[in-house]
Parts: sequence; C-alpha cells; structure tokens
Amino acid sequence: MTPGNLAIPSVSREIILAKRPEGMPKESDFRLEEAPLPQLGAGQVLVRALYLSVDPYVRGRLSGQNSYVKGIQPGEVITGGVLGQVVESGDPRLASGDIVEGILGWQEYAVAQAKNLRKVDPAAGPISTALYVLGMPGLTAYFGLLEICRPQAGETVVVSGAAGAVGSLVGQIAKIKRCRVIGVAGSDRKVHYLTGELGLDGAFNYKESSDYYGSLKELCPNGIDVYFDNVGGEITDAAVRLLNTRARIGVCGQISQYNLEEPQMGPRWLGQLIVKQARAEGFLVTQFADRYEDAYRQLATWLRQNRIQYREDIVEGLEHAPRAFIGMLEGANIGKRLVKIAG
Amino acid sequence: MTPGNLAIPSVSREIILAKRPEGMPKESDFRLEEAPLPQLGAGQVLVRALYLSVDPYVRGRLSGQNSYVKGIQPGEVITGGVLGQVVESGDPRLASGDIVEGILGWQEYAVAQAKNLRKVDPAAGPISTALYVLGMPGLTAYFGLLEICRPQAGETVVVSGAAGAVGSLVGQIAKIKRCRVIGVAGSDRKVHYLTGELGLDGAFNYKESSDYYGSLKELCPNGIDVYFDNVGGEITDAAVRLLNTRARIGVCGQISQYNLEEPQMGPRWLGQLIVKQARAEGFLVTQFADRYEDAYRQLATWLRQNRIQYREDIVEGLEHAPRAFIGMLEGANIGKRLVKIAG
Repeated sequence: MTPGNLAIPSVSREIILAKRPEGMPKESDFRLEEAPLPQLGAGQVLVRALYLSVDPYVRGRLSGQNSYVKGIQPGEVITGGVLGQVVESGDPRLASGDIVEGILGWQEYAVAQAKNLRKVDPAAGPISTALYVLGMPGLTAYFGLLEICRPQAGETVVVSGAAGAVGSLVGQIAKIKRCRVIGVAGSDRKVHYLTGELGLDGAFNYKESSDYYGSLKELCPNGIDVYFDNVGGEITDAAVRLLNTRARIGVCGQISQYNLEEPQMGPRWLGQLIVKQARAEGFLVTQFADRYEDAYRQLATWLRQNRIQYREDIVEGLEHAPRAFIGMLEGANIGKRLVKIAG
Repeated sequence: MTPGNLAIPSVSREIILAKRPEGMPKESDFRLEEAPLPQLGAGQVLVRALYLSVDPYVRGRLSGQNSYVKGIQPGEVITGGVLGQVVESGDPRLASGDIVEGILGWQEYAVAQAKNLRKVDPAAGPISTALYVLGMPGLTAYFGLLEICRPQAGETVVVSGAAGAVGSLVGQIAKIKRCRVIGVAGSDRKVHYLTGELGLDGAFNYKESSDYYGSLKELCPNGIDVYFDNVGGEITDAAVRLLNTRARIGVCGQISQYNLEEPQMGPRWLGQLIVKQARAEGFLVTQFADRYEDAYRQLATWLRQNRIQYREDIVEGLEHAPRAFIGMLEGANIGKRLVKIAG
C-alpha cells in the first residue's frame, strides 16, 4: 500500500450519474466512465481511493432537491465520503502516503484541495473506521444522541434503522449512558445482532410486525423518552404515540421517504408534542463541526475499550458502487456498508 | 360588586356536559342545571363567578382523551378558567371581597380550595385581564414565544391563530422583541386588526387564500425563523416549507384538529426539520409554573406602557357559555372571548 510501488495511471474510472432516479435508484441510473487525471494545482493532492462510503443522504442529492447539500447533476461524478491515500501532494500539509478522508468523487483517483481533507491516524483503529465509528456516522450518532436527544441514565431510548451505520452506534452509546435501549430493524438477523452482539435491551423486526405500536409498547412498558429517528414513516408514527412527558425526538434520517416521488401522507401528530411537552429536532452533523475533535477522542476511547462493536459490510470494486448504494437504501447491510476500491 | 350587598342563594346554575361532542360541539351537547351550594369546608372559599374564560384546550377534555388534563365525563360540570369574587371564606389566605382566578366550574357559585386560587390585584389592570393578558393566555404567549421559540431581533416570526387570545399576544411580544411579525387569521376584519391596531408587519386571511404557501412566501421574503403554531393542519404545512436554517416551531395549539373524529392525514415533513436543522417543540404553560411571577410582572409593565393592546369579546350570561365556546372554536372572536356571569 505504499504509493511508491504504484504507477499513477493517466486515466481513472469513475461513477457518473446517468439520469435522475425515479423512486428507488436502479443500476442503469449510473454509468462507469474513464476520465483523464487532471493536473495538480497548488494546494491540491492526488488521492487514490481505498474505500467509498455509501450513505443515505446521497439519495437526496441525486434528485437535485430536497436536501441540504448541493445536488448532483446528470453527467457529473457521484460524490460522497471517501477514504484514500495521498499519492502526490502539492500542499505541505499532506505527504505522499498519508491516509485521508473527505468528500470526494466515486472514482479511483481524485484531485482534491488538501484543506478539505482530514488526515487519518492509522494508530487510532483500522483505517476504514474513519468512514464509520471514527467518521461521519460516528459523529452523527454521538452529537445526535448526546446533544440533540440528551438521554439520561435509566431512560428508554428507541432507535430506528438500528442496525445501520448510525443506528448501530446510537444504540451502543445509549447503552454506555446506561439507558434502556430498544432497536427497530428490518430482519431477524439484524434483531439478533442488536440484542446479541450490541447488547441492546430489545429489538423487533418491523417487516414481521403488523402492529408497530403494539410491538414497541411491549418492548417499552415505561414509554419512550428518546426516539432517534433514522427512518420516518409509520415506525415514527408508532413511536410518537408512546412518547413520555418531555420526550425528545432526534430527527437524523427519513430513509423510508427518500425514494418516494410524492410526499407520503401520514396522520398529523403535532398535537402529541403538545400533550407530551415533547420536542422533535432535526440536525446535521456539520452543525457540531467545532467540536469534532472531542467526539473523535471519545469514540476512539470507547472503541479501544471494546465498548463499541462494529461490523463492516464490504462490497468489492468501484463498478459495484451503484449496487452497493441501492442495497444500502434497501436495508441489505448490517453496520456500515463500504465499497472497497483498492488497498 | 361588594359581596355584602348580595344574598348568597341556596342554589347555583351550572353548565353540564350532556353528551360527548362528535366533531364540532353543538349546544345540545351541554345543558343548564341548578344545583344546591355545598357547605364550605376548612381551607375552602365560596366564589361568585364574574367571568368565564372559554379556551380551546377545553375541547380535548370533552372527548375524555387526547389531552393533557383530566377529561370531563358526561353529567359533570364543565370546568375552565374563571374569574370571581370570594363571598365566604373558610381560609385565612383569602377574605370576602377578594378577586380570584382559577380553574373552576362553569357555574354561578363555586366552592374551591383557597390554595388552588390566585388572588388578583385589581390595581394591575382591569380585573378581566386576569383571564387574558395577565392570565393563562398571557403566560402561554410569553413563555411559548420567549422560551420555546427564542426569537432574535430582525428575525421573521409567523403566528397562526394570530387574532386569538394567545396569538394576539404572541404577535405583540414578538414586535416588542423587534422581529418582523406576520399573522395568519380567518377574516379580513382580523387581518385589519392585526396590521392596524396590533402593528404586525403583515397578515393574511387564510379563508380567502387558495395557496397558503404562496401567501406566506409573499409576506416572508426572507423565510421563517419562528413559527408559533396555534392551529396545525395545512397552514402549518405551508409554514414548514418556508423554514430557515435553525428555525423553531413552538407548538401551542392545533385548533384545526380538535373537532376531527379521525386523525387528519397530511404530508410527512419531518425531513424538512433535518434539512433546516429545525426544531418543533410542544409545550404547556404549566411547565413554567415556577416563573409565572416574572412573567406577570413583565406583562403588567407592557400593559401599563401601552405596548400591549387587547380586545375582549364578551358574551353575557352563563346560559350562553356553550354558544360562546362553540363560536370561539369556529374563530368568531377577535382577542379573548369571555362569558360575563355577574358583576
């Protein structure tokens, strides 16, 4: 993996948005292309991709609307979280061989501004964790749970999308904070993972439940104090009915809604927030940017202490990135889904 | 109005819940009865009602569900905010002649625990303001706006139900805090009141608008920073689409939903809270009970300084309380609707 051993090619393969998806994306909405590598300018580095992260928020960007980051236009390279290695540097902050993480293209080689990259410490954990526990999903779980939801010891925390990248960390951090933690997930295998490997107090497979409210109520006999929402839709409706007084909903994701062409209708429940004096708060991890270092330090400590478990779900090959992304949207993964490009 | 001039009768008229309303309450859901006055016990006082307050939250109690206060059963006296005068006291804290306010029955004479009554200072303003600016609606507007929504000078505040008891105060307090304030109300007369007498920056009559989003957007060219919600439903849906980053929704009431037999369906918009990093928080005024005195003092100061205007909409006669209540639910009133019983 030392870059000196690798000849830098003159072209790089990349994944292009062929057309805007309608509903659930299809592989034909993407295409693989080759493009010549651009020349490095001052302050830039050439990064060889090792892993791509496929994350739900990218779905919104493909629609060019309804999201908080710039949309991707048809004909453009898909961008997302990438872990890579610097193979050529035009900036004194980074040297050839450094492991870096940032928002880059889904491509084998990317030219990036050095200042937009985070240098990853290989001693902090396996480098791929820079896209999971020690990366954006970790920060999202950490700040979303601790700052937005403010769980107290003994409270009941429910997390939806509980076996996904963010959800799996939320559940474990809530356990570290001595909460009773219930997960909602989409397969028996995930439920087993949550209550076994991750030590959650309970979980249910919503795909096998005809009554989300009843399933949740059984697992939360004392009601719900914190609901960390990754999915939205009917699971959220059910959780809202069980909120305790002064409950907090951290709205992190709404993956059940991302592939709908029209807004889904659901029962209006703002009145429940009044009755319960409860709060629903949406957040983006970037609003905590000035405190990332504290979170990285804490997450690395928990990881080292084995208080956080994690699983990676690795798909090999850039050409399979669209399929890996679609599978993630469909809930195929346990833990963090990554696409391995090289290394 | 001195109680010495009045013989205390042996019976008192009162309004009973005849049957649970289905949908919008009808006058036939109530009935007027006479009941003998009970004997005073230790710690109790006999209160002669002067004004009843008709408030939206009472609607939830008539259904015996879905509310935050105990339901009223058929055959029981309706209870709500009442301003009255002590005519006989079995407690040293209150003397005959004192003006008091509390949650009492819709009846001419009520026996109450002295400790559950608030003594009203007739020097602070006309005594009926103890049910409005210097009462529950005032406290609700004060804490709901300032504590839940935290408006900053220069921000755009939208208030729905803007000409009602709480809404009319929210708009004026937001103006005192140097916000741009837009009201939503249900008649041209109300709109004129809001932009004229109350000094709001803009308002629209939702009953004359076929496009709430368009109407709001025109009045809020810089988006919405604070939305104080008294109504819910489609007006709220429109406001949500215009939220700015880090916007706050104070969920105070959902009057558009209170007379529905089934939960109304609406477009799911939790995703908007993520995109805007925004918060929706329900509240009850009682959660601020330990700070009421500060609020009363500030509200009385603003009232004395003429920085708060108010209108009362007075219906005469206990027998008309059901009609007054129904009219309030239908939006007939500007400002606070009261029922004058005596005095």
